[in-house]
Amino acid sequence: MAMIGGGPGAFIGPVHRIAAELDREIELVAGVFSSDPDRSRAGGEAYGLDPARAYGNLADMLAAERARADGAQFVAVVTPNHDHLPSARAALAAGFPVISDKPMTATLEEARALAAAVAEAGLPYALTYTYSGYPLVREARARIADGALGTVRKVVVEYPQGWLAGPATGKQAEWRVDPARAGAGGCIGDIGVHAFQLAEFVTGLRVTELLADLGAVVPGRHLDDDCTVLLRFENGARGVLLASQIEVGELNGLRIRVYGEKGGLVWKQETPNTLTLLRPDGGCEVIRAGTGLLGPDAARRSRTPGGHPEGYLEAFANLYRDFADVLRGQAAPLLPGADEGLRSMAFIDTAVRASAARAGWTPLTL
Amino acid sequence: MAMIGGGPGAFIGPVHRIAAELDREIELVAGVFSSDPDRSRAGGEAYGLDPARAYGNLADMLAAERARADGAQFVAVVTPNHDHLPSARAALAAGFPVISDKPMTATLEEARALAAAVAEAGLPYALTYTYSGYPLVREARARIADGALGTVRKVVVEYPQGWLAGPATGKQAEWRVDPARAGAGGCIGDIGVHAFQLAEFVTGLRVTELLADLGAVVPGRHLDDDCTVLLRFENGARGVLLASQIEVGELNGLRIRVYGEKGGLVWKQETPNTLTLLRPDGGCEVIRAGTGLLGPDAARRSRTPGGHPEGYLEAFANLYRDFADVLRGQAAPLLPGADEGLRSMAFIDTAVRASAARAGWTPLTL
Amino acid sequence: MAMIGGGPGAFIGPVHRIAAELDREIELVAGVFSSDPDRSRAGGEAYGLDPARAYGNLADMLAAERARADGAQFVAVVTPNHDHLPSARAALAAGFPVISDKPMTATLEEARALAAAVAEAGLPYALTYTYSGYPLVREARARIADGALGTVRKVVVEYPQGWLAGPATGKQAEWRVDPARAGAGGCIGDIGVHAFQLAEFVTGLRVTELLADLGAVVPGRHLDDDCTVLLRFENGARGVLLASQIEVGELNGLRIRVYGEKGGLVWKQETPNTLTLLRPDGGCEVIRAGTGLLGPDAARRSRTPGGHPEGYLEAFANLYRDFADVLRGQAAPLLPGADEGLRSMAFIDTAVRASAARAGWTPLTL
Amino acid sequence: MAMIGGGPGAFIGPVHRIAAELDREIELVAGVFSSDPDRSRAGGEAYGLDPARAYGNLADMLAAERARADGAQFVAVVTPNHDHLPSARAALAAGFPVISDKPMTATLEEARALAAAVAEAGLPYALTYTYSGYPLVREARARIADGALGTVRKVVVEYPQGWLAGPATGKQAEWRVDPARAGAGGCIGDIGVHAFQLAEFVTGLRVTELLADLGAVVPGRHLDDDCTVLLRFENGARGVLLASQIEVGELNGLRIRVYGEKGGLVWKQETPNTLTLLRPDGGCEVIRAGTGLLGPDAARRSRTPGGHPEGYLEAFANLYRDFADVLRGQAAPLLPGADEGLRSMAFIDTAVRASAARAGWTPLTL
Repeated sequence: MAMIGGGPGAFIGPVHRIAAELDREIELVAGVFSSDPDRSRAGGEAYGLDPARAYGNLADMLAAERARADGAQFVAVVTPNHDHLPSARAALAAGFPVISDKPMTATLEEARALAAAVAEAGLPYALTYTYSGYPLVREARARIADGALGTVRKVVVEYPQGWLAGPATGKQAEWRVDPARAGAGGCIGDIGVHAFQLAEFVTGLRVTELLADLGAVVPGRHLDDDCTVLLRFENGARGVLLASQIEVGELNGLRIRVYGEKGGLVWKQETPNTLTLLRPDGGCEVIRAGTGLLGPDAARRSRTPGGHPEGYLEAFANLYRDFADVLRGQAAPLLPGADEGLRSMAFIDTAVRASAARAGWTPLTL
Repeated sequence: MAMIGGGPGAFIGPVHRIAAELDREIELVAGVFSSDPDRSRAGGEAYGLDPARAYGNLADMLAAERARADGAQFVAVVTPNHDHLPSARAALAAGFPVISDKPMTATLEEARALAAAVAEAGLPYALTYTYSGYPLVREARARIADGALGTVRKVVVEYPQGWLAGPATGKQAEWRVDPARAGAGGCIGDIGVHAFQLAEFVTGLRVTELLADLGAVVPGRHLDDDCTVLLRFENGARGVLLASQIEVGELNGLRIRVYGEKGGLVWKQETPNTLTLLRPDGGCEVIRAGTGLLGPDAARRSRTPGGHPEGYLEAFANLYRDFADVLRGQAAPLLPGADEGLRSMAFIDTAVRASAARAGWTPLTL
Repeated sequence: MAMIGGGPGAFIGPVHRIAAELDREIELVAGVFSSDPDRSRAGGEAYGLDPARAYGNLADMLAAERARADGAQFVAVVTPNHDHLPSARAALAAGFPVISDKPMTATLEEARALAAAVAEAGLPYALTYTYSGYPLVREARARIADGALGTVRKVVVEYPQGWLAGPATGKQAEWRVDPARAGAGGCIGDIGVHAFQLAEFVTGLRVTELLADLGAVVPGRHLDDDCTVLLRFENGARGVLLASQIEVGELNGLRIRVYGEKGGLVWKQETPNTLTLLRPDGGCEVIRAGTGLLGPDAARRSRTPGGHPEGYLEAFANLYRDFADVLRGQAAPLLPGADEGLRSMAFIDTAVRASAARAGWTPLTL
Repeated sequence: MAMIGGGPGAFIGPVHRIAAELDREIELVAGVFSSDPDRSRAGGEAYGLDPARAYGNLADMLAAERARADGAQFVAVVTPNHDHLPSARAALAAGFPVISDKPMTATLEEARALAAAVAEAGLPYALTYTYSGYPLVREARARIADGALGTVRKVVVEYPQGWLAGPATGKQAEWRVDPARAGAGGCIGDIGVHAFQLAEFVTGLRVTELLADLGAVVPGRHLDDDCTVLLRFENGARGVLLASQIEVGELNGLRIRVYGEKGGLVWKQETPNTLTLLRPDGGCEVIRAGTGLLGPDAARRSRTPGGHPEGYLEAFANLYRDFADVLRGQAAPLLPGADEGLRSMAFIDTAVRASAARAGWTPLTL
């Protein structure tokens, strides 16, 4: 694996590195860790790489790695959003499969261009929507697909955070509130889109219409930091998506509740190793990770026995295992790809536009 | 106390009786427990009353109780919504203070008429918005009033239930889905209004605008059973109100989260004896009922020491203690009255109208 | 009902009053609320009684109430432990059924005397082991009796409190740490005995042997404030009983876990409306109060629908409902009586003696 | 790193591999994965090793790796308990630092021999008491060391599991119930010892005396499967240690509560990212992982921001990071070594002997 981005100070670069290597199927061997060659070299050193393989720019890396017998076999894109398109396109053009941090690109238009590039290249392309890697999220999806809830009627997905409730300071915060680097969406593009992808992933249903009310609560902020989006799914089910980065004291509280005719279920990211099933009789059943209660999708992406918690890094690693399967020619139907990426970008784009126009219910247009 | 309604098969009548008598300040002595005289008598017997004081109609009761030296000193109205206005108006006209089950009336127009009747009578009138009787709800209100959260920016109030996810059968369910008896609102009037009142009560802020999306999810249902309402408060704070009666497996999951500039708080009705305070540093503090951490509003409405749970009946009883205070001429500023009743009816009315018209943001009009 | 004890400053007196009257089957009409006549009168006034029926001593009350046509039909004993025997014996001798606060008496010897007096009188006698009044405790007992867990193998019952971690000040604390008023046991007699009774009640099994290690942790304390007791049940099951009043920050954390060959269950007093069933496959099921999942013992002692929490006062009231049933001549097999009282006193006595002697495993002797 | 044990079917081998490599400071390069050469080769293949470095026996590996310029720099021992001594001793004798799965050895006598070998070799030796690697366990230790609780008075540490409640079948279960392979302790040596180590680690206090009651509950079992051990710490604090493998439905419920004069704390392994602090006023504060509330010991062993759960593998990896620090010549005072190993073996040995003899309080003898 070669990495683009993820140099000194980045949060997500080391996470990709750990996730990719966790199961010993993938090894980070090269990278352009910064657009500044010195910083890129420093990044390579921090990862313990051969200094010759910490490149100063992408073109050099793609050429050099292609030329090596032991060259990288795919590229991971972990740059800020506005760079996702050029980096991924260049890598695909050079013949490298790509796994990219979400969202797919900075704009819907770019996403369309990248989807076309993926189709043209005919190479694997995946997006690390981390939360779809949690075993119990996959279990939830499988149970809904198996009809455990009957027809889905209602979805409530929430993603509360509080870390941008004050002035946005520090590397992680600054680019997220800057329209030039983050794209047209703030909170909606940073975390709202995770909630959207999770809702479609778990229910297996597509959102067809939405009503968005995005707010910029912190004085002086140019991008949304608090989002309410009402959803309609293809089968008529009603949905509510809440995402916020100004809910003081919330850390990373992503959670989803799905209700059908015959039952409901609840999953919460901060206690990810349980899945609660709600029954019409008022009883509820708690399914725990690592037990024999899990179906095959969840079981094959678990590493520890019940009661030994797995977390965020393991969920992330599951996406890389899926990607390794794809590279080996196996199917990985649960791994988000260009379709999910395009849908996600359409969600951000539609929500931003519809909210700005106070447009009421608006179709989700790809 | 004399009761109107609450006869055989009713849930809420016995609850009012227990709540009223819990602290030995009030005693149920008379009632019209049903519009059917035989059923009324049966009701009186079930409560252990003097048979002579289980009346066949309201006029008889008001006249007889007024005439007795030991007659009832106030009337509790616990009939279905459409009867709230005539019963309360008659009682007030006969000189009896009134405490009424919520909502105030079946329609906003009726509520205006009742508010006028209350003003004209100059007698105490209160509404049993039960959840505002919980000590830790009062603590939440006091802490926000004291500035613990700074300016309130965001409110999320949810009221999930699942018991009407199937066909509505049984006495409790039937009138709730019948527009003739329940009024124009289904879920919004039955439980959404509790969530509305709780949000205003806890924050001390008034809702000025709303955007409502009410749905009738169960096939054949004429009234809403699943509600999403976006709120704006007078200070610009953003709010989300979710209420549903089709979320299978949910019992009575009312809960509220409030976030300000400096902190947040969370209260959940099903575990009502704790209040969680969220801090900007990611820590959270749990305040438990019955401890010295409570301020005076909460402390004086607690009966047991910490760790001895109080519940729904005790919260209900707190409203009756407030009402007893009022009858004694003391202030009870936390007890919901005609103003809150009128605001609540305006909420239901505005939400129903705005949703039917797909009207987008709509001012809350009294 | 006539009350002995429970005057000004008492915690448990008002609790008995509320509990007795909650379901309108019983009314407090008389009492000796203090051994000081003025204080007794003040107590009667606080309860709103006829001043003539707030007596200055027990003999007067028993005589006077017996003489009245509308006299009290039974006596509730809520005095400190050392007074339980004389009060209960006098009431029984005067022909009054007795319901008494736990423990039965101050010493095992006294308990034997009282058990004999109960037998001789042939009158109802009950003990308010409150926690056995919780509906879900009764549900737990019923499920174990029905074989849901198979043979019981292991019981862990804990009762952590922290309020005596510092110097014992205040009316509630002082008598509890005074051997003259509390008896030979401190924590073991105050709360350990609740845990013991709960363990026997829920499992339906009797303790035959114990190993006790009682400590007086706070410097200068003469009675135990921290207790560890190992148990053996009649079927060979192993048990652990932990009770403490020096676990700082714990309020009233009574809880019990029972494991059998086929399953386990968990109940916690501070969240009393759920019962968790553990399965061999690692799944767990949560039973909630007020739902159709409850068997008849729990269902008939519930007042509110699911999701409307009941608490300590309602559990207490369930014992009075049982007692009212007994007075009416009905059976109330779940109501603790003289047998349970004697067993509890034997538990305290055996634990105190065995611990003092470092005696190792010791038979529980009645 | 070279590994001894951990071949096909092993649970703990892959865990060590992931943990060691998680932070890219260590790489698995060689191993004897089984005493059967073919199985060892299969193990090496599963880990993706150079086939030449999957050795058929330990002597060969030590010799070969020592001879290579790029040879392993230390050895990880993950064999069943009875092999810990010979493997570790051989590795140390060959000049390799050793990190070993717990417990140190199968018997106390062996542990003394190994401690002597460690001292003689003058090489790093560490034990993977995993739970001491959790950041919030380290936070708990730091806060107690800083005096947040005042003098520690009481410790309750519990380790409930249920997976051996039935007949022990499968590779993981069989050796654990076989005295020949597991040593004299069953549950006490497998998990009780984790609880012991956690209690000493968190409090910073040494156990001086214990009273043990070990039971073999499942019919036909030769080793204990349910353990109660009372503890006394060096400062007089009282302790209770419960460990069981027959508590049906429990997965890996290790948890610890510590109470001092001024406060208490609670940590639970199955939700490892929070630490609850209990206060004398009845309030409690929840500290969450990844926030600025953590002191340096916890913060430097965290990889993700607050709300992104870390789990068992990350805790395990923290021990390997400590070990890597030691190999670099830095101090790692929190890493368990030969002293802790010897104390742990003394705990097992004393508990087994004292229980068998029904000996009452018994000093912990090294």
